[in-house]
Amino acid sequence: MLALYIGNKNYSTWSLRPWLVLTVFGIEFKEHWLKFDDFKSNSPFKQQAMALHPTGKVPLLQDGNLVIADSLAICEYLAERFPEKHLWPADRDARARARSICAEMHSGFSSIRNLCPMNIEADLSEIGLELWESNAHLNTDVQRIQMIWSERPVQGGFLCGEQFSIADAFYAPIILRMVGFGLPIDEANQDYVQRVLAVPALKQWVQQACMEHCFVEIDEPYRQDASTHRMQW
Amino acid sequence: MLALYIGNKNYSTWSLRPWLVLTVFGIEFKEHWLKFDDFKSNSPFKQQAMALHPTGKVPLLQDGNLVIADSLAICEYLAERFPEKHLWPADRDARARARSICAEMHSGFSSIRNLCPMNIEADLSEIGLELWESNAHLNTDVQRIQMIWSERPVQGGFLCGEQFSIADAFYAPIILRMVGFGLPIDEANQDYVQRVLAVPALKQWVQQACMEHCFVEIDEPYRQDASTHRMQW
Repeated sequence: MLALYIGNKNYSTWSLRPWLVLTVFGIEFKEHWLKFDDFKSNSPFKQQAMALHPTGKVPLLQDGNLVIADSLAICEYLAERFPEKHLWPADRDARARARSICAEMHSGFSSIRNLCPMNIEADLSEIGLELWESNAHLNTDVQRIQMIWSERPVQGGFLCGEQFSIADAFYAPIILRMVGFGLPIDEANQDYVQRVLAVPALKQWVQQACMEHCFVEIDEPYRQDASTHRMQW
Repeated sequence: MLALYIGNKNYSTWSLRPWLVLTVFGIEFKEHWLKFDDFKSNSPFKQQAMALHPTGKVPLLQDGNLVIADSLAICEYLAERFPEKHLWPADRDARARARSICAEMHSGFSSIRNLCPMNIEADLSEIGLELWESNAHLNTDVQRIQMIWSERPVQGGFLCGEQFSIADAFYAPIILRMVGFGLPIDEANQDYVQRVLAVPALKQWVQQACMEHCFVEIDEPYRQDASTHRMQW
């Protein structure tokens, strides 16, 4: 059976992506949790991750003797391994667009990714308002993301059409960041955000993230401890 | 015919990747040069790039009405469009590994990418020595890159075997950075570096880069003008 190694559900955006793809498409897998710590080279997290793959990062997908690093490479592998599931859109041009927006997320949007780290259990909307008013680059990132969302080919659908695809999994963490930091979501994209938040697999991840109760200092630029800023999901 | 929009050959690592894939595999395309400037939103470069695609970045691949942004998405598209060329390795596990190391390059190695910007016409080995001695993260990046290179399945071959693949195109800019900054290359990887540098398409790119004679300030953290630090290729 496939095995997916992930980090903390509260923080790990990269882990969420392939986990969501596997879960939404009903692909059986065993989940392994590598608990985040300080990520120093001798930390338990790094030791465990390095023993699996020299990158020392999650997510990792194990299929027999093969261990694949990186969320995008994992999703491409799954798309090939389960062609009948259509993890990418069936149409070639639509697939090219899907890959293009996934790649854009994979290497870009550094402002929102750096300033607004995912923290599912926290309501950081006060911080978000300050960040929003003081960071032009954050505004640029959000504007481009919302442009991508607004180009959905089907009204009320997912990013590439009626069906959930890898592209939606790649943008799901952004939705959780934007909700957590209270960033403004365009009227035209409200239905998309609600549609993704209603995906049972995402609801399950959010619920499990809130139950982790595991405060990781390095992932918490804005809180002293977990007792404050609780998000009501 | 396909059209590829690229930036300055002297500086644009992202442009080099798909250009190399197209050229090595003999796929016909028309090349369009968008000259780098200061990248401000109203600059000629940005205006031209934005007119083609909202990301406002190169490379861009145009195929009829379809415009694809991002080097990795472009390469995936080409691999699908020309299946007989085998741009990825034919074996599924080898392909997963190829995608994994491309993705690692696509989103990672920020130290070497930030500290050692590609500058083909320049010999920056004095700077490189200083950077090498003072930056632990640069050492970590180079160490991991060399580990990837050392895992080639075929002695004397390319990253994924006897044949050049997308993975080699993704690591070619790193070779040019390492040569330009005089970073140490392991004995075990010398043959790989020489093999890539001898690829006719890469030699052509290097030659054309040296003939551009176009000094772009924003891409030049280490030179005042183009008259000094000339590289002898």
